[in-house]
Amino acid sequence: MKWNLKILGSSSALPADNRMLSAQLLTTSSHHFLFDCGEGTQFQLRRFKAPVNKIDSIFLTHLHGDHIFGIFGLLSTYSLYRRQKRLTIYAHPGFARVVKSVLRAASVRTVFRIKFVNLNCDGKRLIFEDDELEVYSIPLEHSVPVCGFFVKEKVLLRNVRKDFAREHYIPFYWFDKIKRGEDFVDEDGTVYPNEEITLPEKEAKKFAYFTDTFYVPGIGKEIENVDVLYHEATFGLEHSDDAVSKLHSTSRQAAMVAREANAKRLLIGHFSTRYTDVKFLEEEAKKVFKNTTAVYDGMEIDF
Amino acid sequence: MKWNLKILGSSSALPADNRMLSAQLLTTSSHHFLFDCGEGTQFQLRRFKAPVNKIDSIFLTHLHGDHIFGIFGLLSTYSLYRRQKRLTIYAHPGFARVVKSVLRAASVRTVFRIKFVNLNCDGKRLIFEDDELEVYSIPLEHSVPVCGFFVKEKVLLRNVRKDFAREHYIPFYWFDKIKRGEDFVDEDGTVYPNEEITLPEKEAKKFAYFTDTFYVPGIGKEIENVDVLYHEATFGLEHSDDAVSKLHSTSRQAAMVAREANAKRLLIGHFSTRYTDVKFLEEEAKKVFKNTTAVYDGMEIDF
Repeated sequence: MKWNLKILGSSSALPADNRMLSAQLLTTSSHHFLFDCGEGTQFQLRRFKAPVNKIDSIFLTHLHGDHIFGIFGLLSTYSLYRRQKRLTIYAHPGFARVVKSVLRAASVRTVFRIKFVNLNCDGKRLIFEDDELEVYSIPLEHSVPVCGFFVKEKVLLRNVRKDFAREHYIPFYWFDKIKRGEDFVDEDGTVYPNEEITLPEKEAKKFAYFTDTFYVPGIGKEIENVDVLYHEATFGLEHSDDAVSKLHSTSRQAAMVAREANAKRLLIGHFSTRYTDVKFLEEEAKKVFKNTTAVYDGMEIDF
Repeated sequence: MKWNLKILGSSSALPADNRMLSAQLLTTSSHHFLFDCGEGTQFQLRRFKAPVNKIDSIFLTHLHGDHIFGIFGLLSTYSLYRRQKRLTIYAHPGFARVVKSVLRAASVRTVFRIKFVNLNCDGKRLIFEDDELEVYSIPLEHSVPVCGFFVKEKVLLRNVRKDFAREHYIPFYWFDKIKRGEDFVDEDGTVYPNEEITLPEKEAKKFAYFTDTFYVPGIGKEIENVDVLYHEATFGLEHSDDAVSKLHSTSRQAAMVAREANAKRLLIGHFSTRYTDVKFLEEEAKKVFKNTTAVYDGMEIDF
């Protein structure tokens, strides 16, 4: 099954005419992950017909307002919808207390459980794992602690080629062993190498979400062969001094990370409101990494 | 100078397709007052080209999320704009602490001063006064403490008729006395009654903002002769049981308050998202109070 990424907001700290604050929804086979939740995220989820109630986890890169101020309204709306399903929120330490105090003041009573998981910025960490996938937090560089996120599908089992199975009357108990990579040995002792009797392994999908951050050389290696990398590109080359002083990236730096990562595709966003047309940010990035796309609110990517 | 009221959000607890959460901006001769600040208020201020930086006071009726969750983003944006001007926030006790803890977590440093004024729900209170106007808080009835607000222009000084002044060579020191209502006595002892030598008194403008509330009989008397009354009208007659159980008003009840108040005009809003067309709410209200208007986001009223 393809994964789907929905861009809900693509502006930086301030909202712009057609760009709202940071938020993206990743839909995998069995999850709806929300990355960041700027003010108005619940409106954008509604506007772009996203399955707001199915979101099972929220990953917050850092605690700046443009990435988190939508959480109070979203939780309040869940409470009005009488949501039952547990929600997990990955955020930096201290955020759970803030959320609880806001909900208490606003008399929001949630019947669903909210599980808070504290992020840790001292290295790459596996923060979620199930049968389908793994999620890692990866420290980035900004004015406050920030973690990027890396979602990685688990290496899938190999499928036994149907024609081979039909021809050789493979006993039932052998299937699992072959799927896990073993060679098949028939009653006569003939060995059939695994690669020959199974279909080529389906590649594990990978998605990375990196914002807000200054360019961190070498960080691409942490997300090698990522299918889709979303990397902030607040500034263009002309304002690269602002990128330094404000600890953000230029679109070219985003492209450098994508190249390092050997990514298949780079998405750039979190654009400064000074730019009304961001095509040139895409062009500047493309000189370093060809398959770059500047995102817009409501954009969807299947991969 | 006319006052201007800008409707920023007209939905109830949940946002609807064309209606955002509660917020209204009242512009008087010398003030920009924001009433309520639901999530997305800063977007609506921007969308409707309101002078966001000129807002000097924010009046929050109560602490339910759809009336307050926009405050964090607005303050954060003010901080990014490097606002200098002091901001006063009128809210129920406890809110100052919540705002401070959210701003601290989000690393929002405000250089401008925020003055919090605690509302008190045990009776009508004068909460603001200057040369131009008075603002009163008036307790309403809801599931949590709620105050409505009543803004009242001060009774204005009478103006001496120019033709009379020209004709009678009135000494300078007499002007102030006449403006305050005294009769003029000339050198011969002739008395000129104040009403004859001054222009008719300009009527003091009045605005009331009542939401969220169940119908409170008699409350109209607190805002007598109000020019514009905004009163919540979450439900229609058909759902008057919901109005009782959820402590909201029907549009007819809003009209009853307007009639009691001898209001000039009634605005209704805070509509339940179950209604896509709210014309019938206006019609139901009009049977009790003719000059009723159902508001919409972006609507402006001059009075």
